[in-house]
Amino acid sequence: MNTVNTLLAAIQGTGRDERRGGYTRPVYSSAELDLREWFTAEAQQRGLGVEQDRNGILWAWWDMPDDGRPRVQARRGALVTGSHLDSVPGGGAFDGPLGVASALAAVDVLQTREKEGSLQRNRALAVAVFPEEEGSRFGVACLGSRLLAGAIEPARALSLRDAEGNTFADVARANGLNPDLMGRDEATLATIGDFVELHVEQGRGLNTKEFTDHAGRGPAVAVAGSILGHGRWRFSISGQGNHAGTTLMADRADPMVAAAQLVLAVRKTAAAKVDARATIGRLEPLPGGTNVIASSVDLWMDVRHPDDAVTAALVESIHGQSQKIAAMEGCTVRLTEESYSGTVHFDPALQRSLERSTARTVPRAPVLATGAGHDAGVLAASVPTGMLFVRNPSGISHSPEEYVEDDDAQLGVDALVDALQDLL
Amino acid sequence: MNTVNTLLAAIQGTGRDERRGGYTRPVYSSAELDLREWFTAEAQQRGLGVEQDRNGILWAWWDMPDDGRPRVQARRGALVTGSHLDSVPGGGAFDGPLGVASALAAVDVLQTREKEGSLQRNRALAVAVFPEEEGSRFGVACLGSRLLAGAIEPARALSLRDAEGNTFADVARANGLNPDLMGRDEATLATIGDFVELHVEQGRGLNTKEFTDHAGRGPAVAVAGSILGHGRWRFSISGQGNHAGTTLMADRADPMVAAAQLVLAVRKTAAAKVDARATIGRLEPLPGGTNVIASSVDLWMDVRHPDDAVTAALVESIHGQSQKIAAMEGCTVRLTEESYSGTVHFDPALQRSLERSTARTVPRAPVLATGAGHDAGVLAASVPTGMLFVRNPSGISHSPEEYVEDDDAQLGVDALVDALQDLL
Repeated sequence: MNTVNTLLAAIQGTGRDERRGGYTRPVYSSAELDLREWFTAEAQQRGLGVEQDRNGILWAWWDMPDDGRPRVQARRGALVTGSHLDSVPGGGAFDGPLGVASALAAVDVLQTREKEGSLQRNRALAVAVFPEEEGSRFGVACLGSRLLAGAIEPARALSLRDAEGNTFADVARANGLNPDLMGRDEATLATIGDFVELHVEQGRGLNTKEFTDHAGRGPAVAVAGSILGHGRWRFSISGQGNHAGTTLMADRADPMVAAAQLVLAVRKTAAAKVDARATIGRLEPLPGGTNVIASSVDLWMDVRHPDDAVTAALVESIHGQSQKIAAMEGCTVRLTEESYSGTVHFDPALQRSLERSTARTVPRAPVLATGAGHDAGVLAASVPTGMLFVRNPSGISHSPEEYVEDDDAQLGVDALVDALQDLL
Repeated sequence: MNTVNTLLAAIQGTGRDERRGGYTRPVYSSAELDLREWFTAEAQQRGLGVEQDRNGILWAWWDMPDDGRPRVQARRGALVTGSHLDSVPGGGAFDGPLGVASALAAVDVLQTREKEGSLQRNRALAVAVFPEEEGSRFGVACLGSRLLAGAIEPARALSLRDAEGNTFADVARANGLNPDLMGRDEATLATIGDFVELHVEQGRGLNTKEFTDHAGRGPAVAVAGSILGHGRWRFSISGQGNHAGTTLMADRADPMVAAAQLVLAVRKTAAAKVDARATIGRLEPLPGGTNVIASSVDLWMDVRHPDDAVTAALVESIHGQSQKIAAMEGCTVRLTEESYSGTVHFDPALQRSLERSTARTVPRAPVLATGAGHDAGVLAASVPTGMLFVRNPSGISHSPEEYVEDDDAQLGVDALVDALQDLL
């Protein structure tokens, strides 16, 4: 087995979800903490120095030989690669860990090349692991990179709560972080000269007819061009909780009925707009008893579109519909924006460099726009960032069925090695 | 404060639900176990002997004076009253506890009357507390009385699981019961000569124009005539879990969209049928992440109608609709019946006795059909049972807003005392 797959095999038992299938590795759960320990041990084995910054991001440093400069100066403008280790509930094995394992495998190759004299480094390299990329515990995706880049107010981040009611501040503190120090971190940002994130493709972008060969097989690696603007909104519909057996149908103000109409309105509105995606994947009735008409229902909506103005118009249209729907049922509705990231175009110079280096391993590597958010997208506003995507045969992600072939994972590492060598 | 309200005040801090409001007291939770301890102490204070039977039902015995007969014989055909202490999630303070507290308050009065010579008892009296009346932990309502009466297969009951995946067998064992001994219990059934359950009214039956006075105020107490047939069904809709950002709207097989259509079909089908009620109060998407198209959605449906054939036809119609809805979305659906209880007509002789005795306290006490299930309904197939309902001004139940006025609670106890005295 090649290194990247050996690395992934070592964590295949961590955070398995027997009920949903796949993996459930929320940030700072025992599963995610086990993965951090695994990463730290693997990095140290490669002679990298591992540090956690004040926003909970792990940094494994391959420093340049000591030239007498203070370390903080010697690390300025370093080349950084990496990804995340947390997962959605019941997610796949590759979303996040593939980028981390590929980074470690790439370090192996680069260190060997340096020893053999075929690599001349001009700057330090770090592998970074970002916490809460999925937002599956505290509701805001890319929370670690947002804090680092100042893309979320620390006070807001610290007051986020998980499903058990714990605040992010409490959980951060319990994991050895000082909430007072969290937020935009200029010193750490200054260490990032370029950030290259390798990630499993999460759609069928590499398998479209445009790119596939006569056997229907797309290229193994792509370079990212942009990330669709995307955000999360929460609808809270309130009605009249009551007994399911004694309340006549005509006497009801049932927020579940309003929620159902809203789910259909979301589907219809998004389907009518080219390139738009809108999803209700999380819905929670309160109190949630079988023999109880719900008193309220919360729905979380994910909306994405390449054009930020279209996203805003879609949300506004759905909001208007939700108010009419709720009123018809004798309910009320409240809409809260939980997060929003505008469409991101990756750094053009870095993208061209990635295109050139990737072409050596994967001749027809395309440039893809992706619908998924990433830490590289959040950081793009502060530092040059770029991404490589590795083929996912079915395009299925955020599901136990997410899959990467061993040979493709190795081609991903090869492309990452070339990309990093060109940039070092 | 009168005795019944003093008793209820003593438990008003037990099992409070800060998130939902009201109370969450699932069977064998620390809250419900605290209530059992409270009940045991209150019963023992009144000289009653408290025992737990092999199905987890508590019995507080006011035995007849020792006449040399074995106790098991002396208790045959006793008069039993009582209710339950468990609640739905975020339920009210009265659903269950009102019947238990009223029973204890009634014992006080009857014991005083016996001492004063104004009560001649001809049989023993017991106050019973039934576990899992709501079915809010293991999904089957009236689980304790069903086991006692043989209205559920013990093997099926024991294999039921709560939301954490614990089986009823494990939870029963952890609470000192022997799962091998659970099921229909002839010896215990033989001790029940008549069962009278007092309960808070859960609809607006006492506040309909038919019964209210010029001030719009209905009578404080009613006698039960029948319980609407009711059951619980579970729909499991399976689709294709996927990434919310990368999966085009046209490529989706989203079970949440099918679930939404099903919720609307349930509402429409039930609303079109006089006297029918159908509710989806519980809905769980898997995995339930905001940025994830669900792979499956489970919905629990509660259906009730006075005519069992109509209930069956309603469920059949909704089942057919669910199959069409699922197929249209590229999903599949599976329907499971979790429980069903046909319409129950209470024992006519016992009902007449309750009507006569109640008329002394509440002159215009009506006879009501109720849409809510009760342990008295399950036991009606095995022993004579009857019920008294106490006014609930708004008709709201299974909600923190459920309410009973102090004076009405006292009138309920007065009616129960008269009913029990006539039957003793």
